[in-house]
Amino acid sequence: MIAAVPQSNRQFRLARRPVGMPTHDDWQQAVEPVQPPPPGGLQVRTLALSLDPAMRGWMNEGKSYIAPVGLGEVMRAGGVGRVLASSHASFPVGTLVAGVLGVQEVATFSAAEAAKAGLARIDARLGTIPQWLNVLGMPGMTAYFGLLDVGQPQPGDTVVVSGAAGAVGQTVGQLARIKGCRVVGIAGGRAKCDWVVDELGFDACIDYKAGPVRAGLKEHCPRGVDVYFDNVGGDILDEVLARLAMRARIVICGAISQYNNTEAVKGPRNYLSLLVHRARMQGMVVFDYNDRFPQAIAELSGYLRDGRLKSREDIVQGIEQFPDALNRLFTGANFGKLVLQVAKDEALTT
Amino acid sequence: MIAAVPQSNRQFRLARRPVGMPTHDDWQQAVEPVQPPPPGGLQVRTLALSLDPAMRGWMNEGKSYIAPVGLGEVMRAGGVGRVLASSHASFPVGTLVAGVLGVQEVATFSAAEAAKAGLARIDARLGTIPQWLNVLGMPGMTAYFGLLDVGQPQPGDTVVVSGAAGAVGQTVGQLARIKGCRVVGIAGGRAKCDWVVDELGFDACIDYKAGPVRAGLKEHCPRGVDVYFDNVGGDILDEVLARLAMRARIVICGAISQYNNTEAVKGPRNYLSLLVHRARMQGMVVFDYNDRFPQAIAELSGYLRDGRLKSREDIVQGIEQFPDALNRLFTGANFGKLVLQVAKDEALTT
Repeated sequence: MIAAVPQSNRQFRLARRPVGMPTHDDWQQAVEPVQPPPPGGLQVRTLALSLDPAMRGWMNEGKSYIAPVGLGEVMRAGGVGRVLASSHASFPVGTLVAGVLGVQEVATFSAAEAAKAGLARIDARLGTIPQWLNVLGMPGMTAYFGLLDVGQPQPGDTVVVSGAAGAVGQTVGQLARIKGCRVVGIAGGRAKCDWVVDELGFDACIDYKAGPVRAGLKEHCPRGVDVYFDNVGGDILDEVLARLAMRARIVICGAISQYNNTEAVKGPRNYLSLLVHRARMQGMVVFDYNDRFPQAIAELSGYLRDGRLKSREDIVQGIEQFPDALNRLFTGANFGKLVLQVAKDEALTT
Repeated sequence: MIAAVPQSNRQFRLARRPVGMPTHDDWQQAVEPVQPPPPGGLQVRTLALSLDPAMRGWMNEGKSYIAPVGLGEVMRAGGVGRVLASSHASFPVGTLVAGVLGVQEVATFSAAEAAKAGLARIDARLGTIPQWLNVLGMPGMTAYFGLLDVGQPQPGDTVVVSGAAGAVGQTVGQLARIKGCRVVGIAGGRAKCDWVVDELGFDACIDYKAGPVRAGLKEHCPRGVDVYFDNVGGDILDEVLARLAMRARIVICGAISQYNNTEAVKGPRNYLSLLVHRARMQGMVVFDYNDRFPQAIAELSGYLRDGRLKSREDIVQGIEQFPDALNRLFTGANFGKLVLQVAKDEALTT
């Protein structure tokens, strides 16, 4: 079913750079008329957007692994959409595509812009649209390459993952189980912890809101931590550093606890544990693995199909919810991969 | 020339665990009668001891890469000595040996204790006794394996080393030059900086006492830092983190700035630079490479012989100077590898 081309395009643009947690005043809601795409280009109707912790970093000025979003620009966001109009040979009208669509209802691309946005057709037989933003999208790719390439888990290893019920964490933990590891999650709240253990098959989960993480690590990682996949930074990183096994690998994927700091980032005081345990701490950015995404998607969609891999998405309805929805990531209010459904009239799962 | 067996053995024992910088009260000076070695064992007269920053860590209670020195025990120290008495097949009387002798004039070993102390004969043709405690000893081994195995420098890389005029740093920098890298040292004071540039051939040296390290790194590492060999930790580690090149490697060898802390270690606030630059930070302990020491000694002594590698030792006379000499490491008062000459009547260099 192809919707008619909408006449207007609601957008969220970055109005100013936030200090600490973003507020409504940091965003400008705009409505623009929809213009036809240039020759060779295409127009995409946004169905759903991925809301990710990394977006907070893109709002800051200064050098990072990707340029910041400019003031006045449409906020960068990955998403899935359907091609409404196109003279681009690779993307006929009606195609489902994933890529950087931005926080807007309609995204219009020249051929060059489409390439820059990483637009790619997606195969709805391999997963639902929310799954294409989760386990088959950037979070899944991050989990796959971060765990396997950087973390290099061996069968029998103890793998710990923070943000265990989040988008990246849920796939990290399940993939580590599939690879023969013992998996301990760290998450906030009983419901998330129960879910990763009961539904996803983690061996244990430490509720950091319920008690000291240190005691949980001691109980559940009696032989130390061989691989730590870190999504949160802060005190939890320090606690895991204090519990490393020899030759441990720490994957630095993110530090959600630090993204809204108004003071300096908290450095890991226990970093000399790297020396004691001949361990390493290594950063990763998913874009480096673009060329190998097809391999990862093939493997992960196979696990989805045979039921060894599950996914959970937390779907918020309506583009107007964008500012509040994004902030749920930083309070831990989301449960599963956070997705913003933008087109309300097209079902995301079938 | 073989000295007669001394009748008494002066020692320094650990009297209590220091808080912050060690004081004289943390040591107990003892004098013991010298007993003959057990059958199959040997007795070694200490000629010179290696004083190393790591010794400060051994004085603390608690788990580390090696057991702490017990209260009342002779302080652990590596050294070179001459065999005075022996019924051990590998160590005839008169042999020069290196190993863990302890801070004492005479060390007596059973065969099992000799193995545990890592006693090994040394070849005086390859280097002087101070060099056997420096470039051909633990500091040199640390430099060799830390730089080459963990740092993995490539020709053309920019290698930065802190504690550049110290025991490990001097060899790290020269070895990196030999391997085709651009080398920037960080050291305290003009004299040390001039020496590593003028005598050792470093490309540049940043005097951290003279001005901001940040500006020096910006000037001397315009394309970023590919390998950082860290002996100091603290603020300098943070400054280098802020200047990493893509896929940089940080070797965590030590953190001399933090060893006498009475508060918690300073964690590196800029550790998320590891993520931005897909970099890694990895700890190393030289004992892991024991099996490969002969290879390293062969290579390094070759460089000494052909003049491509120089060394500098700072020799303090007399075992009674031990407490004050050790503390010179932590104030940066030493210039070159710090060696304590114990036997005053045998020349260390010929």
